[in-house]
Amino acid sequence: MSHMKDVLRNRLILLSHDEAGRRLARIRSLMERAGMRGMLVSDNANKYYLTGRVFAGYVYIPISGEAIYFVRRPVELDGDGVVYIRKPEEITLSIGLGMPETIGLELDTAPYSLIKRLRLIFPGSEIANASALLRNARSIKTDAEIDMIRRSGIKHRHVYSRIPRLFRPGMSDMELQVEIERLSRLEGCLGQFRISGDSMELYMGNVLAGENADAPSPYDFAMGGAGADPSLPVGADGTLIVPGTTVMVDMNGNFDGYMTDMTRVFSPESGKLPELALKAHQCSIDIHRALTDMMRPGTEAKALWQRAEEIVKERDLHPYYMGHRQHAGFIGHGVGIEINELPVIAPRSRDIIQAGNVIALEPKFVIPRVGAVGIENTYAVHADRVECLTNSPEEIVYFDL
Amino acid sequence: MSHMKDVLRNRLILLSHDEAGRRLARIRSLMERAGMRGMLVSDNANKYYLTGRVFAGYVYIPISGEAIYFVRRPVELDGDGVVYIRKPEEITLSIGLGMPETIGLELDTAPYSLIKRLRLIFPGSEIANASALLRNARSIKTDAEIDMIRRSGIKHRHVYSRIPRLFRPGMSDMELQVEIERLSRLEGCLGQFRISGDSMELYMGNVLAGENADAPSPYDFAMGGAGADPSLPVGADGTLIVPGTTVMVDMNGNFDGYMTDMTRVFSPESGKLPELALKAHQCSIDIHRALTDMMRPGTEAKALWQRAEEIVKERDLHPYYMGHRQHAGFIGHGVGIEINELPVIAPRSRDIIQAGNVIALEPKFVIPRVGAVGIENTYAVHADRVECLTNSPEEIVYFDL
Repeated sequence: MSHMKDVLRNRLILLSHDEAGRRLARIRSLMERAGMRGMLVSDNANKYYLTGRVFAGYVYIPISGEAIYFVRRPVELDGDGVVYIRKPEEITLSIGLGMPETIGLELDTAPYSLIKRLRLIFPGSEIANASALLRNARSIKTDAEIDMIRRSGIKHRHVYSRIPRLFRPGMSDMELQVEIERLSRLEGCLGQFRISGDSMELYMGNVLAGENADAPSPYDFAMGGAGADPSLPVGADGTLIVPGTTVMVDMNGNFDGYMTDMTRVFSPESGKLPELALKAHQCSIDIHRALTDMMRPGTEAKALWQRAEEIVKERDLHPYYMGHRQHAGFIGHGVGIEINELPVIAPRSRDIIQAGNVIALEPKFVIPRVGAVGIENTYAVHADRVECLTNSPEEIVYFDL
Repeated sequence: MSHMKDVLRNRLILLSHDEAGRRLARIRSLMERAGMRGMLVSDNANKYYLTGRVFAGYVYIPISGEAIYFVRRPVELDGDGVVYIRKPEEITLSIGLGMPETIGLELDTAPYSLIKRLRLIFPGSEIANASALLRNARSIKTDAEIDMIRRSGIKHRHVYSRIPRLFRPGMSDMELQVEIERLSRLEGCLGQFRISGDSMELYMGNVLAGENADAPSPYDFAMGGAGADPSLPVGADGTLIVPGTTVMVDMNGNFDGYMTDMTRVFSPESGKLPELALKAHQCSIDIHRALTDMMRPGTEAKALWQRAEEIVKERDLHPYYMGHRQHAGFIGHGVGIEINELPVIAPRSRDIIQAGNVIALEPKFVIPRVGAVGIENTYAVHADRVECLTNSPEEIVYFDL
């Protein structure tokens, strides 16, 4: 934590000069291509991407010239281009005569009322959607970003390696989850689970035991669970962890603002899981092998989804794949500052795998009366290879009774 | 947790018939007044208010006639008016000829792109802002809602009563917070901390020790803290809890979808806090007394803020009030499904206190080199009295060393 105090001087931009420049350059090349002459960024995840910190305010990026950082809170930040404002209308004064013909705004995440207000700052400008552009820019990570995700992965794996020691016979899914939460937090997990858009909600991750894995949830996560209360209907619901059933652990790996996504399966006592569950778990591992062999720059995301589909069908596991009573529509997704980044590995995805993508693959199965099986790993795509950032044993781990 | 399984049948509406009717009637009377002939609700907090559960989809409320519940996920829900859809465009078919002249949409929370898409469902309708209307409706709680908040309060107080037992000498703010998180979760806290809008972020609450209380944060919370990482710059930052300084605990009280907000102050060892800190803490308690005496239906919210301001100035505590390096602009707020509901107790608030409001008051102080002091309680406003929902000792509690 003292790290924070060292870097948290008053400098607004906490990234190195070169790193900030690289990110800005990537965004500007996409702006150029889209004919977007200026962009005003308000989303916390995007501001963090641009500056290495979260602040209340806006970043204005003209297609050329210096970016301007309009800050409302906190007090006392400084640096080139920092301008304090009380309300967005004051932005007009600083931009002055350089009004862009087309202004990019985050139309997919910013509320309608905010966009309506921001439009008035740029009365002569056409508005364009900066959300898709920024999602694209962020889908190709810089080396420094991959390094942060790698570091989160190391801590994430370390927490997972200690899960068997947290189990006590008679525990419920929720009791196990709470102990994993505690361990993660003591290892430095920030807890905050950033999801783009506000319709998906989850607290710290998902521990799914036995039959509860088959409870459908309203959220667009790969797996469901009834949850402890109808106000947050996902994940653990108090199911006891008993022999012959599985516990799928898919817990938060956000240790430094960038996250890994990782799932492993546990079960009390060895040798009691039905053959179908073991077969499906092995199938998930095999899909990981097959897809990481294909996951090279230039591959279509939908081809990965298709290949997994073939493997599942060859093995007659389709009724259990990505859910049983309810099925998820994707088997992988980009991950970084948020858990739902590009590319999306889904049947109608138009994404193409690129070097710098960081992708979580999660081919999973729900076996009725047994629970969820399958693993999730986070991979960095390099020009010539795929690097697993959550490398650790993939077999089902049996808890001592 | 078995509660969940009992109620989580397939019935979409988990509220009693009467309770659902009361909420709908309140919304419709506000719609009538605003000339809004229909409303389409997509925000999770508002759907939870209307149905007692969260689902992916929309609620369509015509000014008269039956509401329609358009569900995308989860599968298998049923009940009067439930219609499954894959995309919002399918809503058109069900509404058919009954298109309203004016359609209310959640303009303050729904993303611009979503509103643009939803507008096309109502090609002939004018759009109006349903966000403000729903915020108003939800600011006056029904008896059943107050009862849920009351129940959250009981658990919240119980967790707080056990905080002294969690302290060990040499602990950091973060270590204490993690133990409080664990205890809360084991008591049934859902963790999820619902905030309207997505620019405020916080994980499970705020534990502020010593000097860190004076670190300004970018978020519009009453207090700040540097946080453990610049990607989430609020709250605990690893500060050691030492004699002569305070620890302010303001942790999540969401045990059933409705929350209480509660803050208490702790300090290791008795008798060592400077007079200024003790005086400011007492001032906070006295402000609670003065404001709860005034907090009756019909009182202006800004008059409460003003009265607190006078008390603080009389006692020469203004430089420390609601922050020291950075000051918050409000001293209280409505609370319920979300932490930032109406009314707002602030200098330019236009809100009027009404019976059924549930209000958290948090007059707090930051004393340099000592930490934060002051308390927060959640109150229900009844016609003739104010009920404290977080009733427990208000003095600074000293940890044994």
